[in-house]
Amino acid sequence: MGDVVKQLAVLGSTGSIGRQTLEIVRAFPHRFHIVGLAAGKNVDLLARQISEFKPRFVYYQDKKAQARLANAECEFLSLDDIASHPEVDTVVMATSGKWGLSPTSAAVKTGKKVALANKESLVMAGEIITNEAKLNEAQILPIDSEHSAIWQCLNGERQPAARLFLTASGGPFYHYSSAQLNGVTAKQALKHPSWQMGRKVTIDSATLMNKGLEVIEAHWLFNMPFDSIKVLIHPQSIVHSMVEFIDGSIKAQLSSPDMRLPIQYALSYPERLPNPQLPRLDWGSISNLTFEQPDIDTFPCLRLAIEAGKRGGTYPTVLCAADEVAVELFLSQRIKFTDIANLVEQTLEQHQVIAHPALEEIIAADAWAREKALQLIAEYNL
Amino acid sequence: MGDVVKQLAVLGSTGSIGRQTLEIVRAFPHRFHIVGLAAGKNVDLLARQISEFKPRFVYYQDKKAQARLANAECEFLSLDDIASHPEVDTVVMATSGKWGLSPTSAAVKTGKKVALANKESLVMAGEIITNEAKLNEAQILPIDSEHSAIWQCLNGERQPAARLFLTASGGPFYHYSSAQLNGVTAKQALKHPSWQMGRKVTIDSATLMNKGLEVIEAHWLFNMPFDSIKVLIHPQSIVHSMVEFIDGSIKAQLSSPDMRLPIQYALSYPERLPNPQLPRLDWGSISNLTFEQPDIDTFPCLRLAIEAGKRGGTYPTVLCAADEVAVELFLSQRIKFTDIANLVEQTLEQHQVIAHPALEEIIAADAWAREKALQLIAEYNL
Repeated sequence: MGDVVKQLAVLGSTGSIGRQTLEIVRAFPHRFHIVGLAAGKNVDLLARQISEFKPRFVYYQDKKAQARLANAECEFLSLDDIASHPEVDTVVMATSGKWGLSPTSAAVKTGKKVALANKESLVMAGEIITNEAKLNEAQILPIDSEHSAIWQCLNGERQPAARLFLTASGGPFYHYSSAQLNGVTAKQALKHPSWQMGRKVTIDSATLMNKGLEVIEAHWLFNMPFDSIKVLIHPQSIVHSMVEFIDGSIKAQLSSPDMRLPIQYALSYPERLPNPQLPRLDWGSISNLTFEQPDIDTFPCLRLAIEAGKRGGTYPTVLCAADEVAVELFLSQRIKFTDIANLVEQTLEQHQVIAHPALEEIIAADAWAREKALQLIAEYNL
Repeated sequence: MGDVVKQLAVLGSTGSIGRQTLEIVRAFPHRFHIVGLAAGKNVDLLARQISEFKPRFVYYQDKKAQARLANAECEFLSLDDIASHPEVDTVVMATSGKWGLSPTSAAVKTGKKVALANKESLVMAGEIITNEAKLNEAQILPIDSEHSAIWQCLNGERQPAARLFLTASGGPFYHYSSAQLNGVTAKQALKHPSWQMGRKVTIDSATLMNKGLEVIEAHWLFNMPFDSIKVLIHPQSIVHSMVEFIDGSIKAQLSSPDMRLPIQYALSYPERLPNPQLPRLDWGSISNLTFEQPDIDTFPCLRLAIEAGKRGGTYPTVLCAADEVAVELFLSQRIKFTDIANLVEQTLEQHQVIAHPALEEIIAADAWAREKALQLIAEYNL
């Protein structure tokens, strides 16, 4: 093993992925060093993280609150400046939503390793980000458990995959009928059967939108045509995804559902690190792994996402933005669970696509979609 | 892809693995060329193979029958001479039983790639063969589906595995009680639920002896301690084996149970070849993959094999030889199914082990065990 200490910036350090990233750093203090931390909320936790990890660079969204962090001997920089700083070699992109877009772009433009948990960067700007990464020899290291699984399975293979199988737990409502889904509450939807995650991604898991976004991500990360990316419902969340090769052989990656493993793998790659804190699968208690085809009639978000991905351009941005608005409205009990897909679909239908958008056009499409979605809701008086 | 044509010798070309190897060669005539063929029985099939593949070198066990093959423009050589011939770069070792020992040794001593389907070479002489391979930079490429799965999963990994999980179908009698096993017939035992194989290995699958031999093979192939090699009963025979890494991540290899895939992988490695003749897994029809711990009380052959492997020296040779005698006696209805384990155990108990045997001592232990097993049967009048 090399003794090089990786210099990390963790953007979104107070969120679920950010906190788990710092657990890994804590477990391997001689391998990883925190150079930068950035958070959007939770100034108290950020203050504690600063005092523990003593980063040189800090970002906090609310400038006025910086005074509370001022005891630390650190410099306040923008997200983009931290992501592209010469002292940083690996950026953990754990911010949520479109806020990841600009720093991800800044990081790949400066040839960083980008451990990517932010879905929106690739969903909204996959073409730009992957092209910039190629030009600048930046490496995108996936942190999503599904993409980490695929990446692990591709390791050492000389030829591209034939097909990818993304697994999906199916969420809490998988065998519900459309009628049953109609009456689902936010509280029910927030109870994910196998993963502990943020609220937005938990609802996206229940609608299967999350899996649709992951299909788009997989398309860009692994340069795979959409028709070669399949989704399988696998409620046990043990097989995190699979790769089929040109000879028909399939490799799968399995583990307990714990995000610290894909985070650690992205940080330690191409090595693996022994970490007794990570759970081992107990084959004495696993009796059964099941797989079934997704029901895209009852869960139309999956279909909408894949269609938006295939049509490309600004469509995936509109999908993301409308979904974010719809999920917020559902969580605040303004719309029904089944309205999430309806609202996304109607917003997409009204969009005038731009085929190969620049970053500004993506930002504009995002703003357009949010406004349009709210307008549609107001009109329909949902 | 490279355009180098691999020069193959197939030893055991008329058996199940040999015939399937030739199917792969037939599918990729520009990648593989047959230089040598060797068979022990079935002179008619060998004659047809010679006329189709026109090998330069041929071996047939019965010298008198060579006249029937004499129309071919080929040279008759010994197994060892074919396996070590300078014109051969890859030897497919598909002979059965101890007959593989000497040519495998000849092949590794001359630095060949050895695509190994013959279990006995590594079970009986694992220490010698792996040491000779290391010294002469020979590569042992496993053809057994389980070891191929592990090898595929280890591909690209920089660190040794933490644990190996060998899967076993459990054979046709897996949930039988010891009392039920007592009455099992050869005909019943020859019906394997998922694999089409030779008679000896089919019976070994039913007793789980086969899985025990594979544990010993895995120990030598992957340099793994016995306590880090686990067996899981997986009746669907879709997951062919799994590797757990030091971070707790597991990779599994899956495919339809078809030996042509591991054969092709061993021949095409490090590349994979697109072969439409190989079946794809149909995820529409796979609903359920199950795993359970093996029952070593009811199936003591698994325990006997692992113990023999751990004790090492000439014990695994005695295990193999006594098992071969016992299986023959069972197939000819001289002993009961449950007597296979008893006979192997009693033979092992009477053995005076040699710790680091030379090849001649292994051959002598084999002869001793066969004689002893027959003598035990005669004494007990089974």
